[in-house]
Amino acid sequence: MKFLRIIGLFMLFAPFLKSCIPNQKVQAGHISAESDSMIIRKIFTEALTKGQCYQNLRALCETAPRRLSGSPGAEKAVSFAEKLAKSLSVDRVILQEVMVPHWVRGEAEKGQIVGGVSLNICALGGSDATPKGGVTAEVLEVKGGMTELATLSAEQVRGKFIFLNMPMPAHHVETFTAYGEAVGQRYKGAVEASKLGALGLLVRSMGLTDDDYPHTGSMTYEGAAQRIPAVALSTNSANALSKALTKTPKLRVKLITNCQTLPDKLSYNVVAEIKGSEKPEEFVLVGGHLDAWDNGDGAHDDGSGCMQSLEVLRLFKALNIKPKRTLRAVLFMNEENGLRGGLKYAELAAQNKEKHIAAIESDAGGFTPRGFGVTCKQAQFEQFKKWLPLLVPYNLHKLEPHGGGADIGPLAPQGTALIGYLPDSQRYFDFHHTSADVFSAVNRRELELGAASLATLCFLLTEYGLPQ
Amino acid sequence: MKFLRIIGLFMLFAPFLKSCIPNQKVQAGHISAESDSMIIRKIFTEALTKGQCYQNLRALCETAPRRLSGSPGAEKAVSFAEKLAKSLSVDRVILQEVMVPHWVRGEAEKGQIVGGVSLNICALGGSDATPKGGVTAEVLEVKGGMTELATLSAEQVRGKFIFLNMPMPAHHVETFTAYGEAVGQRYKGAVEASKLGALGLLVRSMGLTDDDYPHTGSMTYEGAAQRIPAVALSTNSANALSKALTKTPKLRVKLITNCQTLPDKLSYNVVAEIKGSEKPEEFVLVGGHLDAWDNGDGAHDDGSGCMQSLEVLRLFKALNIKPKRTLRAVLFMNEENGLRGGLKYAELAAQNKEKHIAAIESDAGGFTPRGFGVTCKQAQFEQFKKWLPLLVPYNLHKLEPHGGGADIGPLAPQGTALIGYLPDSQRYFDFHHTSADVFSAVNRRELELGAASLATLCFLLTEYGLPQ
Repeated sequence: MKFLRIIGLFMLFAPFLKSCIPNQKVQAGHISAESDSMIIRKIFTEALTKGQCYQNLRALCETAPRRLSGSPGAEKAVSFAEKLAKSLSVDRVILQEVMVPHWVRGEAEKGQIVGGVSLNICALGGSDATPKGGVTAEVLEVKGGMTELATLSAEQVRGKFIFLNMPMPAHHVETFTAYGEAVGQRYKGAVEASKLGALGLLVRSMGLTDDDYPHTGSMTYEGAAQRIPAVALSTNSANALSKALTKTPKLRVKLITNCQTLPDKLSYNVVAEIKGSEKPEEFVLVGGHLDAWDNGDGAHDDGSGCMQSLEVLRLFKALNIKPKRTLRAVLFMNEENGLRGGLKYAELAAQNKEKHIAAIESDAGGFTPRGFGVTCKQAQFEQFKKWLPLLVPYNLHKLEPHGGGADIGPLAPQGTALIGYLPDSQRYFDFHHTSADVFSAVNRRELELGAASLATLCFLLTEYGLPQ
Repeated sequence: MKFLRIIGLFMLFAPFLKSCIPNQKVQAGHISAESDSMIIRKIFTEALTKGQCYQNLRALCETAPRRLSGSPGAEKAVSFAEKLAKSLSVDRVILQEVMVPHWVRGEAEKGQIVGGVSLNICALGGSDATPKGGVTAEVLEVKGGMTELATLSAEQVRGKFIFLNMPMPAHHVETFTAYGEAVGQRYKGAVEASKLGALGLLVRSMGLTDDDYPHTGSMTYEGAAQRIPAVALSTNSANALSKALTKTPKLRVKLITNCQTLPDKLSYNVVAEIKGSEKPEEFVLVGGHLDAWDNGDGAHDDGSGCMQSLEVLRLFKALNIKPKRTLRAVLFMNEENGLRGGLKYAELAAQNKEKHIAAIESDAGGFTPRGFGVTCKQAQFEQFKKWLPLLVPYNLHKLEPHGGGADIGPLAPQGTALIGYLPDSQRYFDFHHTSADVFSAVNRRELELGAASLATLCFLLTEYGLPQ
């Protein structure tokens, strides 16, 4: 694409384009000295030209990669976040104590086709280790997911590894929908396989590309007959194993994992707050989760959401926007394997009678913005709809009548409107829960636009509240 | 982001989600045996699960990288595209002869601060070489773009290099808007600098990130006093030079370029066609440009658009969609430095009385879809608006009342509705016209969604036409 077209279009449409520049005066509710649209324009300009979240994310990934709950990385992340929050000159920075699970991967996990190739594997989070020296068994491939697994008999399964190899269905436009349909294999596969006498679980990674990154993630033993070892295979390794099985159905795989679950550990949610100028007793929350899986830097999941949330506060301070309601950025601990931070936060909010009118979570990656999904009362949703014309000029077209986030979910019983930030989902599962989730996978402008989008909604929510 | 949230949301909203799955029956105009929305759902499913454009793009980038007009790469690209088009079993594959400019970069271009660091430079397309052995001069930095350059006197400039260092303004949400405001420096900088007696032009690369990739692109000498050499500096080099100039205003830079313009060469547009079943005399065109700058593989610019356009035909064939109007994929030659292919195509269309009711160009990269921009009559635009509900479920929210593409622009006098495909623009200028524009910079699903988006609009246009 070259210059002439751009200039040509520019000349042709210059008058029109001017009217398109998103600074038209649109009022969200009442007359204000400075129009809402102008404040929003300032938020985006500040984020895109003087944004700090990208360099903060770099620093987080360098300082505290591999920050699974209970790990030294998580401790460093808490210190880093606390220090960063304090540097913003907000009204309050609080650490909330929370006991978290402490699972460690251990060294030298390994998968191999006996007499054949190595497999790219990683233990699933929360899984138990193989016996020392590993476990070797035949493999029963299940292509039809949990539904097909349910049709198998103990006779067929006993003494073997179950290999759940149903791919995420690629036809869905939203990758999270595809994830939702396939991830039961990872989460509940070990339970069902163990009931049939399997010696272990191999599960195809939750990803839509063919690559060498195994995706870890949480799993459960609740209801299991045995705590069998459970690992993810990279999509390439899953394909290779499937192919090898068609040639040699009796082939054996050797698995070694050394993970273990240690006693719970003390950790923290990090909370930073700007006190509301008119209704300080009403809270608007924006947050992400500070913990991340141990195999990567958690750049998209969810360093992005954390650094965007703190950037929201920075944007308010830099632009001298004084929120009428109290604005909190919350960096939750332990979203990935326990949700203890989210549960503790809601417990303390109830205990302290902090009325949370709305909570937004950014936990779908630092990608280009699409909009928001909101779980709330109908009258509140009508309010969000009225705001949409302020959002559309910034490519925030989506306003879905459902949404939220794991960490903010426990606030639901308190009547909080729950909002999920929706960036574009196409690339998310290229990185999610893998060693590829590193800082360089994040695009600066996409991250910054997300921060500005969050700040915009926080501005509207703190300014106007929601019908109760 | 973990499993529980997804599942939780799924359970909570399962009834709603079902109603959201984009296969609801929406009719675009009249009753058909299979609803339009179901056909569109099939297009997306085919593209996302059995798509060929990603592997075709890989093959194009491997077979014919560096395919600037007149180059051996361009010849290979024409052969590759012709062969690929023929493999689709369409009704006709045509090569349209067109004489194209033939500019070559030559070897060993070099920029250096005398006694200091090397600069990452590349000659601008169409520029003349420095004298053999290079040219050395002091540097006059101009931070205010063409406007500031116009205020300088010959006395200030004579015998120096002009260094146009106004960055693309990052506050714009759409990067093409930022490009439009800055690219005059590249295109017309040499003209104005030469009038003031400059010995050469250095221009900051058209990019929004700080990196080491110089961005080439077209420039003109029309109206110039001298054909002075003109190069782009990478943004990092531009920053380094600017910093060095504040310390040492009299520093000198040495430039060596060896580019030259050879006689015009014969090349081709590649046209592939499925004949319309009811109104074969009406044409709907989807296209991109086959030429690409010589420093990269042209994966985003515009291998993506070319492979998406051929994929549109493949999707029609694979799904047995018989277009009522004639559907053409056109791979234009010479968009980057001459537009000869686009001009020739329009000339032949007029000559052959081929009534082009609509033409779509995909030339903004293989990124996640946002929508379309359309230049057409108001009554036609109303038709597009009626189609919008069919597009929104696929994240095609944007329908802008202006748009098109360089190659299809020459069809305007024939009354053709001109349509630009609008993918997300955030990452485009990380790659555009640089050696970073390679296959691995393209995401499979984003590319495939684009192809499906184009096929969808081609389906509606060939099925229903446009009010004339």
